[in-house]
Formats: sequence, structure tokens, C-alpha cells
Amino acid sequence: MTDTNYKGQIRSAKEGILTKQMKDVVKRESISEDKLMKGLAEGSIVIPANKNHTSIVGCGIGEGMSTKINVNLGVSEDCCNVDNEIKKVQAAIDLKADAIMDLSTFGNTGEFRRKIVEMSPVMLGTVPMYDAINIYKKKMYEIKVDELFKVVENHCEDGIDFLTIHAGLNLKAAEVLRRNKRLTNVVSRGGSLLLEWMLRNNKENPFYEYYDRLLEICKKYDVTLSLGDGLRPGSINDATDAPQITELITLGELTKRAWEQDVQVMIEGPGHVPMNDIVSNMRIEKKLCHNAPFYVLGPLVTDIAPGYDHITSAIGGAIAAGAGADFLCYVTPAEHLRLPTLQDMKEGIIASRIAAHAADIANGIPGAKEWDYKMSKARNELDWDKMFELAIDPEKARAYRKSSCPEDENVCTMCGDLCAVKRSNGVLNDSNYL
Amino acid sequence: MTDTNYKGQIRSAKEGILTKQMKDVVKRESISEDKLMKGLAEGSIVIPANKNHTSIVGCGIGEGMSTKINVNLGVSEDCCNVDNEIKKVQAAIDLKADAIMDLSTFGNTGEFRRKIVEMSPVMLGTVPMYDAINIYKKKMYEIKVDELFKVVENHCEDGIDFLTIHAGLNLKAAEVLRRNKRLTNVVSRGGSLLLEWMLRNNKENPFYEYYDRLLEICKKYDVTLSLGDGLRPGSINDATDAPQITELITLGELTKRAWEQDVQVMIEGPGHVPMNDIVSNMRIEKKLCHNAPFYVLGPLVTDIAPGYDHITSAIGGAIAAGAGADFLCYVTPAEHLRLPTLQDMKEGIIASRIAAHAADIANGIPGAKEWDYKMSKARNELDWDKMFELAIDPEKARAYRKSSCPEDENVCTMCGDLCAVKRSNGVLNDSNYL
Repeated sequence: MTDTNYKGQIRSAKEGILTKQMKDVVKRESISEDKLMKGLAEGSIVIPANKNHTSIVGCGIGEGMSTKINVNLGVSEDCCNVDNEIKKVQAAIDLKADAIMDLSTFGNTGEFRRKIVEMSPVMLGTVPMYDAINIYKKKMYEIKVDELFKVVENHCEDGIDFLTIHAGLNLKAAEVLRRNKRLTNVVSRGGSLLLEWMLRNNKENPFYEYYDRLLEICKKYDVTLSLGDGLRPGSINDATDAPQITELITLGELTKRAWEQDVQVMIEGPGHVPMNDIVSNMRIEKKLCHNAPFYVLGPLVTDIAPGYDHITSAIGGAIAAGAGADFLCYVTPAEHLRLPTLQDMKEGIIASRIAAHAADIANGIPGAKEWDYKMSKARNELDWDKMFELAIDPEKARAYRKSSCPEDENVCTMCGDLCAVKRSNGVLNDSNYL
Repeated sequence: MTDTNYKGQIRSAKEGILTKQMKDVVKRESISEDKLMKGLAEGSIVIPANKNHTSIVGCGIGEGMSTKINVNLGVSEDCCNVDNEIKKVQAAIDLKADAIMDLSTFGNTGEFRRKIVEMSPVMLGTVPMYDAINIYKKKMYEIKVDELFKVVENHCEDGIDFLTIHAGLNLKAAEVLRRNKRLTNVVSRGGSLLLEWMLRNNKENPFYEYYDRLLEICKKYDVTLSLGDGLRPGSINDATDAPQITELITLGELTKRAWEQDVQVMIEGPGHVPMNDIVSNMRIEKKLCHNAPFYVLGPLVTDIAPGYDHITSAIGGAIAAGAGADFLCYVTPAEHLRLPTLQDMKEGIIASRIAAHAADIANGIPGAKEWDYKMSKARNELDWDKMFELAIDPEKARAYRKSSCPEDENVCTMCGDLCAVKRSNGVLNDSNYL
């Protein structure tokens, strides 16, 4: 399936070639072909699209694009029903997720991965390290460098569009972590695995040491690197600390090296961040990582709400996306408690989409506020069918209304006969007044 | 029950008298007696506490205070189960709401009102106009001025701590509304009722015209005025428009007149506001209303999410409270669709409390981030019982975990054996490394 003449998005953009995926993006976003190609060439926009993922519809992430959202799912030992995870994939697509990360850690991961590549028009991401542990049936720190890279290449060959690689958590960062005590040490799975690998083997992070080898593989398939934040803060207390920023500096250096090889890059970011630190976190990423798109995991604006972290992260995600974040990883109500169910996933997706859309309105993304305009026009006309049609979740809105119908079916039971919309329109439309 | 020697909070503060309610506030907040009395005297802090509401525990709203939240409930024609509403009152208290507004519009409202005054240690608010329609069995615009004021006095006599009065929607504001077309005209129930009253009777808003009479009643019982925003925007499109700001200017003038009579004042605010307009909305209120506490209804950062407006308003409320809002009116998932059930109410309260707490962390309110610190310490120690105890909703957190227990009971099924906390602490605590 590999086409040796294939040029990736960056190379194509530099040469003024409009790829199919770029055309998809131009169709969806209000951006000119020239501006899109400029953004891709400079790295401020990415279109993750593995050349082997033939069913993909190109989707842009970055400067001037609408905010995108990602859904995590996957088969694990504690939750190993493959059919159920396939249902989640379809539900995520139906609920308009822009990306899906397959974080499977158990069973025939390759078969699952290839199946979702086949069925998914949205971009797909993985964390190859998780799979390596499953495949080799070893402890992470026993896995050899060649073995790790073999898994990376498998994922690329299978058509995965972006890979999370924690290449920035190197020995230097580990030393900074040692010197700067944290409340919550390392809360990134990938980060903790690589930390263990480095410390037990007394060797540098293989993805950092052999970064060129990684770039070569990514380039071959035009796979986008999502540089993982192994040292992201896992508590409000640890936000914006020395270990986090040390890793970010390294990610910025790795970004430039990737661009030199025409490999697309996103940067992963926090995590748990108090509201008053979010804007500066966005700014420092854009600066240190040369405007590479920022993919944030939350941020969660407080630690105290397990069961409601889709809300804590909707607050943080909206503020982040309003201040420069380009891509929001969804968080579900199950965060910190269990693997999410299908229902958790749905709640997480809607919460993330609300955050993304609120930011798009604030950022003046063309088309964003028009959706709200249509909704409020329908609301003002008490046109319930139209309101349901325009609602972000028509099913839930319909069910709520159906469960409690008022006597006068124009209004709702919230205000009943005191409906302000009905009354104010009535009096304002009466030509005797005003 | 009326004590003619009773001095309200403002008068007491001006005379250096520490009331019982002030003592309650000093106990809860990190504020000195002097600073609290200064804030009360200047109007930047209120302690709504009717002298007839003897069971109240004083609660401060305003500058330097932690962010407070309000719960709306009440008996209406479409939802007329009194016992059910009483259950909601108790649930709201148990879920740590700081205030409850009784918006009853049906049945024996007086009995219900007096019952909740008796049972509630938290402050209570009402909108007397709603009750007037129910009591007099007339259309709002047929109700006489004396009748309206009689209801206001009844509510004060019964022990209600703060009254929402839409005194700022006067004929001038109505004229500005006519000249500046909106997408959604008037979405405030009280606002639409007064607009109708003014236009059909061709008379000035009675609460504006006879404002001194209102102040006299409030002063007698030390009832706090919550000056309603009848022209709050009901859609993103209408935010920060001429009608809204016109009314706000009037509310600022009315604030000064209330303070001259030692009557405490809060200002009610929007509504639907795009994220990028929230900070300026907070600033303009503080300026035009001379730092009177700001009580916001949301703000909702997008119109398109009926069924999820507890989330759209948690985003807006957190940003607002981070930028000066002092008091958040909760919004439930039922907003725009139906009267909230007990479950809706619970979700609304938790979402509001998350927003309030996130803002308190950002604002550096003493004690706020300490809660997060304790939670993250427990999380780092994988101390599940402690995590549940500290969770904002222990019940939901416990239920989530219980529904999906991992093999290793130290971790959770989200990561299972790949638990980053367990792994990173393991390797960092091993003296062989680092």
C-alpha cells in the first residue's frame, strides 16, 4: 500500500500542491487554499492523515481553524468487550467527534485498530507504547528499543493518523522532576512508563535518543506526531511548574526537528490548571513550540469533582480554546474513577463540543455564532421542532420536553403561562404600544 | 415580631456594631471584622438577612467573599406538588446551596413561603410580582400599585431576605428597546410582566416611580434589594446591547438611592453572553453600579445546548466569578425545556458549585485551593475513602467506582495495571533511582 511518490501535507503545501485532505479542510473551514497551505508549511496547522487511511476526510487543527475535539476509547483488561468498543467508535463518529484515540491495551489490538481505520472517516490516534506492553507480554522497561519502534511502524502501516509519543520526558526532565517535588508526581501513563524505562535501564528515553528514527517512520506514512506531555500537572498544585515547562522546552526543540523532516507536529498539554493560569499556559506553549497546534487534556480547573470532570474540563477547555488551544481531548464524568461507558462517552463528547463551540464564538470563527442565531430565532418564535433540530443533542432536548408538557404547548413548564417570550413578543407586536 | 430598634447590616456597620450575621460571616470567610464592616458600609458586600428570618446563618456576598450560589424552586401550576418542593428545599440545603429563591406562582404560596423561612438557615429570595398574579387572580397589568406593594410587604413580613425587583426597566428603557431591535426581546419573566404593565396602562414602572416606598419597606425589615435585569440578553446575539446597558445605568442610580436609606443592594446580570464579552460585562457592572455585588444568571456562553445548560452556564459562571461576579444563580439541565426535577436541581447545584470553586481558586480566596490540595494528596496516595470524603459529590463518585472495580483495588479501571500514579510513585520512591 505504500506509495513512494506520496508527498505529505507539509511537503505538498511547500510545493503548492493542494491535496485531497486540504480540499476537505477548505470545504469545512472558512480558510483560503493559500492561507491553509501557508499554515501547513509553517506548522501552525496540521491535517493528520496517514496515507494508508484511505477513508479519512481531511480535518485541520490549528490557527484559524474551528476547535476540534478528541474521544478516547479502547479495549483494556478491565473492559474487554470488543463489540462494545466498536459501538463506541460509531457513536463517537455519529456524535461528531473530530478524532478518536484508540488506547487499547489488551487482546488483539491490531485487528481492532485495522477495523476502526477501515470504518472511520475521522482521524485516528494511538499511543504505541501501551500496545507494546500488550504485544510483548513484558514489563515496559524490559522492552527493547527495536521492539518499541516495530510497534510504532505497525501502527503507521495500519493507517493511524497521529501518534502520541512522549519524547520530551528525557533524563534531564526527570532530574528537574527530582529537584522540584510535586504533589502528584507523574499522572501520564506514557510518562510514567518511560520514566520507569529510563530509571530502571539507566538509559535515555528511546524516543528522545532515536528521535530521527521516529521521524523517518512518520515521514514515510505522513503520520502526525502528537508530542506527549509526560509531565503534565495532575493537580492544580503542580500546574505550570518547572518539570512541566522543562518538558515543554524540549518539545519545542523536537518540533523544529520534525518540521525539518516535513513531519507534522501537535503538542499535548495540561492537565489540571487553575483558571488564572490557563491563558499563560496557552501563550507559553505557542511561544516555546513555535505556534505548533496545542492539544489539551482538559484542562481541569479543580481537582475536587470526580464524577463531574466533564464539567471541570469544559470550563478549562473553553477558556483554553478561547486563548489558543486548538484541539480538546474530551474528559468524561468517569475520569479518575473508572473506564467510561457509552453514556459517559456521550456526556464527555457533548461537554467538549460545547466548550469548543463557545470558544469558536469568542474567537470569531466564521459560522460559529450563526448556529446560535438560528437557535435563538427559533426560541423567540417558540418553534420547538426547529429548536430540537438545532440542539447540540436533539434526543436529550426532546426527551426533557416530552417528560413535562405544559397545558399551552407553545410554552414550556419552566414558566408556563408566565412565558416571557410569549408575553414580550405579544405586547411589542401590538401596534397600540410603542 | 418587628423590633423598631433593629438596625440593619449597613447601619450597624456604619456605627461599628458587629451583628450576629456579621459574626457568622467572619467565621466562614477569611475577612477581618473591620474589613467586613467597611464593605457593608460601602455596599461592596451584602449580608441578606431579614430581621424576621431568625433561623438564618449570615452569609456574605461581594468583594473578597467566596463565590455564592443560588437555587431556584417553587410551586407552579404545571408542577404543583408542595411536598416535592419542600424536599427540594431540604436537598438544596444539604447540597450546600448558599441561597434559595422561591419562585412559586401557584397555590397557597404564603404557607409554603413561611414554611421554608422556618426551615432554612440559608438566605431566601422571592420575586413578589409572580406571587401577586397568583394572589389577586388577575392579569399582571390589572394589578394596582397598592396591591403590588402589599405583596412586597407580605414577603418582607414573612422573613424573605432578598427580593428581586425589576425597578430599572422603566419607560425610557422600553423606548431604547424599541429603537434597538433584538433577536430575543425580553426573556425575563418579571421584565416582560412589567413591560406589559407599563405599555397597557401607559404608566411608569411602579417600582421605579415609587422606589422610595419600596426602600421604606426594605429598610423596615432589612431586606436586601436584588435589582432585577428585566432586559438581560436572552441570546448571544443580544449580549451587551443598548437596552441591557441602559437598564444597568438606571440600576446604578437606584443603587445609590438605596444606600442613602441604608438598604442593601445586589445587581442581577446576564444571561446569555459570549465568552469574550464576559469580563467587560463584569467590569461595566462594577463601574456603573459602584461595586455593588453582582448576581449573574449564568451567563450561558452559547444558545445551542438545551439539556446541557448547567454546563454552558458553569463555563460562563466560572469566567464571570473569576472576573468579579459574586453570586451565581444555578442553571439546570432542564433550562429552556421544563421545570427542573430534583435530579436536575442536583446537577445544577453541583455544576454551579464547581464554577464558584474554580473561580475562588483563581481569585486566591483563602481556603479554596487547600480543598484541592487535600484531594490530590489523597489521589496521589490512592486513598479512595479519603477521595470520596473530599469529593464535591461523594455519592456519585462512590457509585461510579463501585460500578466498575478493577482487579487491583488500589487503582481504577481507567488505567488498570498501567496506573501512572502507582508506577511513578513506585519508581520515584525506590532509592536505587534518582
